Amino acid sequence: MLIDNAGWFSEVLAEQGCAFSLRTAAKLHEEQTPYQRIEIYATETFGNLMVIDGSIMLTARENFLYHEMMSHPALFTHPAPRRVCIIGGGDCGTLQEVLKHAEVEQVTQVDIDERVTRLAEHYFPELTASNGDPRARLLFDDGIAWVAKTEPDGLDLIIVDSTDPVGPAVGLFTRDFHASCLRALAPGGILIQQSESPLLHMDILRRLYRDMHGAGFADVKTLFFPQPVYPSGWWTATMARKDQPIAGFREEAAAQPGFALRYYNAEVHRAALAQPEFFRRQIAATGQP
Amino acid sequence: MLIDNAGWFSEVLAEQGCAFSLRTAAKLHEEQTPYQRIEIYATETFGNLMVIDGSIMLTARENFLYHEMMSHPALFTHPAPRRVCIIGGGDCGTLQEVLKHAEVEQVTQVDIDERVTRLAEHYFPELTASNGDPRARLLFDDGIAWVAKTEPDGLDLIIVDSTDPVGPAVGLFTRDFHASCLRALAPGGILIQQSESPLLHMDILRRLYRDMHGAGFADVKTLFFPQPVYPSGWWTATMARKDQPIAGFREEAAAQPGFALRYYNAEVHRAALAQPEFFRRQIAATGQP
Repeated sequence: MLIDNAGWFSEVLAEQGCAFSLRTAAKLHEEQTPYQRIEIYATETFGNLMVIDGSIMLTARENFLYHEMMSHPALFTHPAPRRVCIIGGGDCGTLQEVLKHAEVEQVTQVDIDERVTRLAEHYFPELTASNGDPRARLLFDDGIAWVAKTEPDGLDLIIVDSTDPVGPAVGLFTRDFHASCLRALAPGGILIQQSESPLLHMDILRRLYRDMHGAGFADVKTLFFPQPVYPSGWWTATMARKDQPIAGFREEAAAQPGFALRYYNAEVHRAALAQPEFFRRQIAATGQP
Repeated sequence: MLIDNAGWFSEVLAEQGCAFSLRTAAKLHEEQTPYQRIEIYATETFGNLMVIDGSIMLTARENFLYHEMMSHPALFTHPAPRRVCIIGGGDCGTLQEVLKHAEVEQVTQVDIDERVTRLAEHYFPELTASNGDPRARLLFDDGIAWVAKTEPDGLDLIIVDSTDPVGPAVGLFTRDFHASCLRALAPGGILIQQSESPLLHMDILRRLYRDMHGAGFADVKTLFFPQPVYPSGWWTATMARKDQPIAGFREEAAAQPGFALRYYNAEVHRAALAQPEFFRRQIAATGQP
């Protein structure tokens, strides 16, 4: 059967030879910002859809999987995450999850493109409902430059919630940026970065391990989770810790978080750290500890 | 961007409002059997592709995820799996994984459509290489009728490796079939059944729990794993055990299996059993134990 292109949004991965499509009810918005092209659609079954430069960013239906996994595992791994920074994340879904943690005192979100946030406020209000929280500070700036000039040892957690490592996000997948994050983190601090598909992007993951270790992080561990609207439907986020191993997490707090979750729980946290056999072998072959 | 339909195979899920496409290099075969329509394509990046009645069954590139998870968790859960039956599974990928276990003495595969196996032999020879194993018995018959007439207590493991619960496979998702499996299993025996996507098919999963418990199984547990070419990219298989709880598995054997694996390992086994929060709540709400 062929797709009748009228009434569908398709993300075509030319190099990967695959595509994912959602049936649309209407195109709600389209604009070219100074940084990227943003489109918003109403889909038939996945709620509203945001697309940046042709790549699906999120839908209302399933973004909870990604946003919960970009935030809670790292937050429950750190013993006392008070000062958090989000690089990217302009849709504010990750920010909202971070703000659920009462021990967080300040979250600075640095997204280069204010239009992502303004459009999220309009088309994904369920993600931006916490933006008025006095602990949240929204900056629209270059995240790489911001991390480079922030005070040393001043952050407990850096979350890199970026687009793919092409275009504006390419500088976030470099050893220089990771070294800059290491400097900005307090001892025991954690960097977590979205790290693409284990089926399609092992080259990026291998390089990320090399760069994070090369930058001086003491330990690196990858989380695996489903992401139905991203290429291959299977995604990762990779954590790197300053000065300390990533060993265990605050299991009691994770089991009784005191706020609503849809995917994450303590059992899912432990499970997300399991390394598929092919991944374990390929990372081991890079010679990283 | 729109898909140029020439040169793509698309599986369109009309009710789900989504579609997945693979770029094809050639259509290698197409036939209507007495049971279903089978197509074989060469894809650009996923190797050969088998399609049945418009639904993607497998590609050469990623079928290891599904076949390893349909076999090894159940086999390592049973203390001594000697007598195994596969219902469906005509591509022989699951059969090959089962035959890796030296303690298995006999595997009977019952697929209604011999053409699936004959085409797999030709287009996926890497999956059928073990078919000559003297422990393997390939029957082409109605699996429901076969299970109903097999001797009671004669099997340690039944693997239901079927298509979606429409068409020929609809009878495999019924309490009557599950009762028939229970009768065929020896005490401690395990039924494992592919059970669709947790994002898209919670109605099917809830019914499966109700039917398996209703049929008299002592315990039911679901495994979660990535399945990039199936709807939503996220899939499940559900295990049900006769007379005994599903508690633990042969971890030492799973950690040193003595054969090659690409996805499964002991860590992945434990992880696959983690229940996402929304799943845990919805299954609990069915009132099943």
